[in-house]
Amino acid sequence: MATTSPTAAVLIIGDEVLSGRTQDTNSHTIARFLTALGIDLLEVRIVGDRPVQIIDAINALRAAHSYVFTTGGIGPTHDDITADAVAEAFGVALTEHPEALAILERRYGDDLNAARRRMARIPEGGSLIANPVTDAPGFQIGNVFVMAGVPKIMMAMLDDVAPRLQTGAVVHSRTLRIDNVGEGNIAEPLADLARTYRSLSLGSYPFGSGQPGLMGTHLVIRGRDQAEVEAALVALELRLASEGIVGQRM
Amino acid sequence: MATTSPTAAVLIIGDEVLSGRTQDTNSHTIARFLTALGIDLLEVRIVGDRPVQIIDAINALRAAHSYVFTTGGIGPTHDDITADAVAEAFGVALTEHPEALAILERRYGDDLNAARRRMARIPEGGSLIANPVTDAPGFQIGNVFVMAGVPKIMMAMLDDVAPRLQTGAVVHSRTLRIDNVGEGNIAEPLADLARTYRSLSLGSYPFGSGQPGLMGTHLVIRGRDQAEVEAALVALELRLASEGIVGQRM
Repeated sequence: MATTSPTAAVLIIGDEVLSGRTQDTNSHTIARFLTALGIDLLEVRIVGDRPVQIIDAINALRAAHSYVFTTGGIGPTHDDITADAVAEAFGVALTEHPEALAILERRYGDDLNAARRRMARIPEGGSLIANPVTDAPGFQIGNVFVMAGVPKIMMAMLDDVAPRLQTGAVVHSRTLRIDNVGEGNIAEPLADLARTYRSLSLGSYPFGSGQPGLMGTHLVIRGRDQAEVEAALVALELRLASEGIVGQRM
Repeated sequence: MATTSPTAAVLIIGDEVLSGRTQDTNSHTIARFLTALGIDLLEVRIVGDRPVQIIDAINALRAAHSYVFTTGGIGPTHDDITADAVAEAFGVALTEHPEALAILERRYGDDLNAARRRMARIPEGGSLIANPVTDAPGFQIGNVFVMAGVPKIMMAMLDDVAPRLQTGAVVHSRTLRIDNVGEGNIAEPLADLARTYRSLSLGSYPFGSGQPGLMGTHLVIRGRDQAEVEAALVALELRLASEGIVGQRM
């Protein structure tokens, strides 16, 4: 699908995801968030709590994409090293941000110990991302948005991130459900259509594999020109009908 | 955590994941599979149905890790380009594999059209991975294992992959649940312990953030030496107790 829209990458940081202890859901949440804004998510990476891996990923992704969204590793414990790694990736100092410190002082009062105070450290030049759930902020530096790993907090932070993003034309999507027909039987009509509509993305996603009576394929047509998507949908339906296959619009 | 165990990367291939249409669960399944085998999963990448992106990721990951596991893009439709990309990454031809063709002929008989026959194309030098669900095989070439994207099929393929892997010492894990205490209050004891037990991985994972009465932290101690993990667990409990904090073993 041709695009001049902003592009994005997501970087999930955390040993707990790689060990299989926790299933990452943040990348899916961010994917849906970006799709709604017309921003093309082109890559997701999940790395562990290792400085070199984080730094390398940050630098590779921020050079390649309009935006990078990270989640995880900005809490008060010793394994929270994302801010350090981002500062190093940008080659700037990691210093206490007065506004972040004020936020933590308001929240914790006398309970603001050294560990919690670490959460006030922001790479030089960064601006804060509001955290309405537990107050400790995330931050933006350049085109990189650094957010919490806890899904509820991450989602709340996206509200503060959204207005900062340049949006693109939204991608329209239509789905045709084909029951009791294997992918192999719709592959040729779909490929023909893909050749005709080169600016659209045509995908085929089988469901119920290996369960007779409950199998089929979702055919998904995606593109930024809504009229073209609709035209392709009709063309696909006609072509399938000529082979005796009837789809159901979803 | 120091390691001489095999390492691995996962590469999830599919526009449907990046668009937010589908939530990837395969990387989580593979993470748990590898943890049980003592293989360290160090990185996950999700890329779209773009040849250059897939080729670059394959070549970067297979050079950096003992094993690479891919899922997605090996079906019969035009957007299934993983086999082509893997062949190009390895600089080998993509040719019809006699055994794969025989499998497809047995399954489809007269319904083996050109689209389905594409699934018999395997990079030269590759060996098949059995698919007991829908028959069309995955394949292994070098240290790269290429599997289906449908979770049920992917899981079944892992059964055929497992015996081919060199396993490592299993990582033992103990979890202490701390209720109604913020991460900031256990950060210092945890950091002290991390300094004492440098070969262990100590993680802190808050839960119920922002919900008073239902919040706390899971402290996770991980390491390959079980006795050391147990010793660290006891040391952590004692240290927390000296601060009036009682954890619950899980």
